[in-house]
Amino acid sequence: MTDATALIADMATRARQAGHVLANAPTASKAEALRIAAAALRRDAAGVLAANAEDMARAAHLSPAMRDRLKLDERRLEGVAAALEDVARLPDPVGVVIDSAERPNGLRLSRVRVPIGVIAIIYESRPNVTADAGALAMMSGNAVILRGGSEARSSNAAIHAALVEGLEGAGLPADAVQLVPTTDRAAVGALLAAHGLIDLVVPRGGKSLVARVQDEARVPVLAHLDGINHLYVDAAADPAMAATLAVNAKMRRTGVCGATETLLIDRRFGEGARVADALIAAGCELRGDAAARALDPRIVAASDLDWDTEYLDAICAVAVVDGVEGAMAHIAAHGSHHTDAIITADEPTARRFLAEVDSAIVMWNASTQFADGGEFGLGAEIGISTGRLHARGPVALEGLTTYKWQVVGTGQTRP
Amino acid sequence: MTDATALIADMATRARQAGHVLANAPTASKAEALRIAAAALRRDAAGVLAANAEDMARAAHLSPAMRDRLKLDERRLEGVAAALEDVARLPDPVGVVIDSAERPNGLRLSRVRVPIGVIAIIYESRPNVTADAGALAMMSGNAVILRGGSEARSSNAAIHAALVEGLEGAGLPADAVQLVPTTDRAAVGALLAAHGLIDLVVPRGGKSLVARVQDEARVPVLAHLDGINHLYVDAAADPAMAATLAVNAKMRRTGVCGATETLLIDRRFGEGARVADALIAAGCELRGDAAARALDPRIVAASDLDWDTEYLDAICAVAVVDGVEGAMAHIAAHGSHHTDAIITADEPTARRFLAEVDSAIVMWNASTQFADGGEFGLGAEIGISTGRLHARGPVALEGLTTYKWQVVGTGQTRP
Repeated sequence: MTDATALIADMATRARQAGHVLANAPTASKAEALRIAAAALRRDAAGVLAANAEDMARAAHLSPAMRDRLKLDERRLEGVAAALEDVARLPDPVGVVIDSAERPNGLRLSRVRVPIGVIAIIYESRPNVTADAGALAMMSGNAVILRGGSEARSSNAAIHAALVEGLEGAGLPADAVQLVPTTDRAAVGALLAAHGLIDLVVPRGGKSLVARVQDEARVPVLAHLDGINHLYVDAAADPAMAATLAVNAKMRRTGVCGATETLLIDRRFGEGARVADALIAAGCELRGDAAARALDPRIVAASDLDWDTEYLDAICAVAVVDGVEGAMAHIAAHGSHHTDAIITADEPTARRFLAEVDSAIVMWNASTQFADGGEFGLGAEIGISTGRLHARGPVALEGLTTYKWQVVGTGQTRP
Repeated sequence: MTDATALIADMATRARQAGHVLANAPTASKAEALRIAAAALRRDAAGVLAANAEDMARAAHLSPAMRDRLKLDERRLEGVAAALEDVARLPDPVGVVIDSAERPNGLRLSRVRVPIGVIAIIYESRPNVTADAGALAMMSGNAVILRGGSEARSSNAAIHAALVEGLEGAGLPADAVQLVPTTDRAAVGALLAAHGLIDLVVPRGGKSLVARVQDEARVPVLAHLDGINHLYVDAAADPAMAATLAVNAKMRRTGVCGATETLLIDRRFGEGARVADALIAAGCELRGDAAARALDPRIVAASDLDWDTEYLDAICAVAVVDGVEGAMAHIAAHGSHHTDAIITADEPTARRFLAEVDSAIVMWNASTQFADGGEFGLGAEIGISTGRLHARGPVALEGLTTYKWQVVGTGQTRP
């Protein structure tokens, strides 16, 4: 057994014990722990920001984008504290009766939500994930092992201390939220190999992290892969709505997973040029097939790679397709099962798209940028699952639970 | 690419296409396919039984138990056909709206049940699994690749032909239910490695099969591991109920996964000897700790191994514990998270057991032998999941589905 394996085994065993307590803790205690943690973050703001300054000083060699993700300031720290309080106000999923029935023999069956158990979260430079993910796991009654990026280690330790203060202040076991105390990469391998000790791994980060986790994990993974999202403008689309939605879906924030990456235009739609112009006017580079390029001379030629690229940038692929059939064929060939939308005034066409496109989120007359747990009313999200099992799309408290069957009898025997 | 890899890739690609059709097929068509398949089995009964006779002739070297699992006769074949019709009568899970909400911005969100996609079922000698598993997959809108045991290959091919006749008769694609046409074990490896091509693998068989699948799979697995089930007799148990339930839970059928394997007796329960006597009178060997052996001289000494053994036989471990706390500690240490029951007339004690015991199924005053999809009203089951994610306990049609988010707007953009 390596040091990392022994470390993770010890942490996971303590997490299992603490998780048993948290699984049966009242909602009020979990919420109280989060409120105390938020208060601790505000009280110790100077200390947390000083810890973050240590991380930033070590991060001088990182890109401006990475340094921005790492950076905390008073406003961001207040956001972290407020987010803890937001999670404390969410409805507790534990104990909810999903359904129940009485059998002819008098047995009464219920499916009752329970926490998954021990969850590991592996993430990169954003220190707020320590608080967000820790809070969602706590509120859903799970014990959690957090493994943040080495560049954020001082910030993460400071935020973790506030969570522990919250747990202890609410009479809950501190081991319910543990931070891996080493930045040794072997610890990640040990987490991924901890079959039977860890019930679920959630990677939060870039493609290379998610790919490593999916490749190595011997424990279940709730993974978020690419968002190669499509916006299909049907012949029956309102042109003004099409232009407005295309600009919002692509350009509101180009770096989020819900951003549209490919615009599909029905060959019979008369105002493709207007939509293209709106995108270009908003600063978007368009890469099109031959038919798309005929709409506007500023559209450059797309290569085959463009249809399969998540740009996360002010670039959009544009293809002209033959109706909803053509759009669905393109999405089936190139989509990533994340979020795809249709714009049309024709309900049967829309219903067909919503039914047949095989994505976690399908939309009609709405911007793909709404693909977000907060926008969906879930209060927060631990990620957007592009897998098909357990939870799909935005995952929040409910996605961090499972259920048990409770059977109540009066002495029934099976014949 | 090996031959097996190429074979499975081709089958899975055809399954994906067929699955897309099945996912959007009306309930009536899927039910019709199952009824036609049932009729074909009855019409071709002589042919199916002749195929089975070929398998039996090749199986002369197998154990009587294995030969019995392999054997079909007219009565069993009628049971297979009737089971297809039973599945055809189950409510279709596809298209069910799990929940829906309208957001303040007017977006309407629904979570709608959809099939998982392409499912592989790997099983051993029972040819009825070809029909049962094929039917459940079909009715839940999934394409399925069946890989049965080589010893049952002629029987499986005959039953598969009936399923294909059903699909074609109902206007559905034959590729929705495929049978791996080779008994080459490399095909199993290729199924387990088919990440992205196969969405879920369900192993149905003994421990060595399930262990191989869990160990090798690079695709999600719905696995059924041991059923080391406990029956806890609390101090407040009715003695007559305790004796009756213990005999039923252990001895009704000793080879099923819901059979009790360990009897836990509260030290304050006055009639442990009566329960032990009832089990011994029913032909059960009891292996106890020191305190249990004091109840009856016929109880032999248990070794440490006994607490962790799934006997699937007329043997029962017996331990004396200190109340519900002691019972729960024993179950936490030795259980397999399958099915555990308490017998007591004291509701608070029962509620605590139901809440805190971390098993897929927890029961109060009922026999653990009820752990079964049919008994739970699910109509049929593809297995009992001892994992924690996606589906837990008996898995039937709903467990073979996932969901998508449908978002309907009127042109909303995200601010």
